[in-house]
Amino acid sequence: MARIVQKYGGTSVGDVDRIKNVAGRIKAARDAGNELVVVVSARAGVTNELIARAKALCPLPSERELDQLLAIGEQETIALTAMALHGIGVRAVSYTGAQAGIFTDKVHTKAKIRTINAAPLEKDLADGNVIIVAGFQGINDDGQVTTLGRGGSDLTAIALAAAIQADKCEIYTDVDGVYTADPRVVPAARKLPEISYDEMLELASLGSKVMQTRSVEFAAKYGVVFEVRSSFNQNPGTIVKQEVAYMEKVVVRGVAVDKDQAKVVVSSIADKPGTAARVFRALAEANINVDMIVQNVGRGGLANLSFTVPLSEKDRAVAALAPALRETGGEVAFDERIAKLSVVGVGMRTHSGVAATLFDALARAGINLELISTSEIKISVVIAKDRADEAARAAHAAFGLDAGA
Amino acid sequence: MARIVQKYGGTSVGDVDRIKNVAGRIKAARDAGNELVVVVSARAGVTNELIARAKALCPLPSERELDQLLAIGEQETIALTAMALHGIGVRAVSYTGAQAGIFTDKVHTKAKIRTINAAPLEKDLADGNVIIVAGFQGINDDGQVTTLGRGGSDLTAIALAAAIQADKCEIYTDVDGVYTADPRVVPAARKLPEISYDEMLELASLGSKVMQTRSVEFAAKYGVVFEVRSSFNQNPGTIVKQEVAYMEKVVVRGVAVDKDQAKVVVSSIADKPGTAARVFRALAEANINVDMIVQNVGRGGLANLSFTVPLSEKDRAVAALAPALRETGGEVAFDERIAKLSVVGVGMRTHSGVAATLFDALARAGINLELISTSEIKISVVIAKDRADEAARAAHAAFGLDAGA
Repeated sequence: MARIVQKYGGTSVGDVDRIKNVAGRIKAARDAGNELVVVVSARAGVTNELIARAKALCPLPSERELDQLLAIGEQETIALTAMALHGIGVRAVSYTGAQAGIFTDKVHTKAKIRTINAAPLEKDLADGNVIIVAGFQGINDDGQVTTLGRGGSDLTAIALAAAIQADKCEIYTDVDGVYTADPRVVPAARKLPEISYDEMLELASLGSKVMQTRSVEFAAKYGVVFEVRSSFNQNPGTIVKQEVAYMEKVVVRGVAVDKDQAKVVVSSIADKPGTAARVFRALAEANINVDMIVQNVGRGGLANLSFTVPLSEKDRAVAALAPALRETGGEVAFDERIAKLSVVGVGMRTHSGVAATLFDALARAGINLELISTSEIKISVVIAKDRADEAARAAHAAFGLDAGA
Repeated sequence: MARIVQKYGGTSVGDVDRIKNVAGRIKAARDAGNELVVVVSARAGVTNELIARAKALCPLPSERELDQLLAIGEQETIALTAMALHGIGVRAVSYTGAQAGIFTDKVHTKAKIRTINAAPLEKDLADGNVIIVAGFQGINDDGQVTTLGRGGSDLTAIALAAAIQADKCEIYTDVDGVYTADPRVVPAARKLPEISYDEMLELASLGSKVMQTRSVEFAAKYGVVFEVRSSFNQNPGTIVKQEVAYMEKVVVRGVAVDKDQAKVVVSSIADKPGTAARVFRALAEANINVDMIVQNVGRGGLANLSFTVPLSEKDRAVAALAPALRETGGEVAFDERIAKLSVVGVGMRTHSGVAATLFDALARAGINLELISTSEIKISVVIAKDRADEAARAAHAAFGLDAGA
């Protein structure tokens, strides 16, 4: 008998029939003799509907009231999932975040979990119940409902798995697992049986969209091993854990492409201490995520600064840069026709030549590199957006990731 | 400055525009310098939608889970109403039943309020906030969500008014107040400025449908004076209280017609002790509401028992009576073509001749009386359903209730 935490996302519990499907999966795991705690999200679409209603009443709704409102999405699915289990003869009890003892700080709409009091849940587990817990929500010391922000239900599952020392944590979603590349772009992409926290973090932050980085960070901190898999089939997924055994040859775990980036070039600014700081402080104060910073010193003591920002933040970046550039001088240019391609793998730490292999593969495909940045387990390059898919396939093949390779 | 509890029903908060309308009314009362606690129901239709979803998953859903599910209807409207107030510059805080300290017993789906801890609410009131409380729900000592059953939001408002010693309690609904008769049947019906708890109870139980009897009983027990009025206009409503000042002539307060009744005649049963008891015990065990019982002794030591049951319970009454009649002998006949007409008024207590006036008015209209029953403040008669409206108009006129009379 194992103690398992399962988490089902909004698509998996999107309607009555899908909730029945989830109940069937839970029953199978229970019938196999396991203890089960199941975290569910709101039905897909419900949260957006509620936000639309809120904004129709108040353009900038109070965050406390927004939490009070959004928490009902998950409260609906926990009750319905428990009922679906009762309907097929499985004993189950639903828990809101507050009832599950998930205590958070007081930061509404993006609260952090402070502690979990799992005593009532342990008692119901010992009585033979499946426990259905509302994801994404908690309660603060004042008895007010809080929500955990994007990816909050994954976080609930991983935090509960840590609190009750679960043997397994299964994150059910609408994808099969983590792939070496996006299969829609790279047909030869393969599903990874295992991946390390660090690699998963790089892939998550590079837009592979399987999970938010904070849940992976939390799992790494508490050593929670989890599996990402699909609720729509029985395929094994990808196990995410600290150390991954793999063949010596595999230095790159996956290739990620992010097309939602813009390149910013600030040219002809004074090359003196404090200039770059002034530019990036202006962006930081506007909460704009900047990546891949490269500085070149050009002719006449003037420097060029290049970096990428998320496409959605481009207009805010323009506005934030204007006053800074009045002080530092210089001009700003944007290029939206770029993409960021990254190769990720903990194996890079001990293997040289990864950069050379990547650059060589792209050169052979005739793809120009506009910016380059590297970390211990990642190399990213900015390339033309219209060549990105081709570049991904070339890199995937070059690192021996293609199926059958 | 007065302390006011207002309650808005599901139709009054049915959509975003109606919630805005309610927020405007709350703002007007607040701007007039009043302290306000506002109880809201779920949006009209939401509760039925949730029940339908539940039944699709489990034909007989667990009552604990049903409460967990249904509570979200009100939790949505409290947050939206608070946001609507923020949108027009009114400070407001929403409270679930649990947050409002409404502690109930453990009977899910029809819990009774045991106590209210209004301390947090008093603090927010003192800070100048309008308090928006979820109707219909509470929490039990185990931290589980409970709901109060039909008419539960009215009960929440009246119990809160008692707990915080409100000066006024206003029940906003989709009718203007309590009328001397249904205006659709009796065009000359008038709205009553005041009515006593006892009269309101008789009218409520007679299907005037303005409020459930339990809320009126609770108000009577704790002396909570409340006003029933419309959220869609500014007309004064009907004030419900212990003693009502009225002109000496007014002995009858209103005329009610209930067409959802069936007459049952059990004929030719043995006229001996225990026979009637056997019949009614069978009905009581099936939880069937019986009213207007009349027994006649006929020829040959055989008796006839007549009574009324709600039309919706007719089939269950048939099933419940069958085994009893095998013991007592006798035959059963049903008549669905009847209606119950009642005249109600505390003035009857000290005025004789009310029955005579009623019977005379009906006789002059050529309407036959099938059953008669009387209480201290009510006289009810069973008549043919197709003559009921005409009978109501005749009785209304006979007791001087017609507008302009």
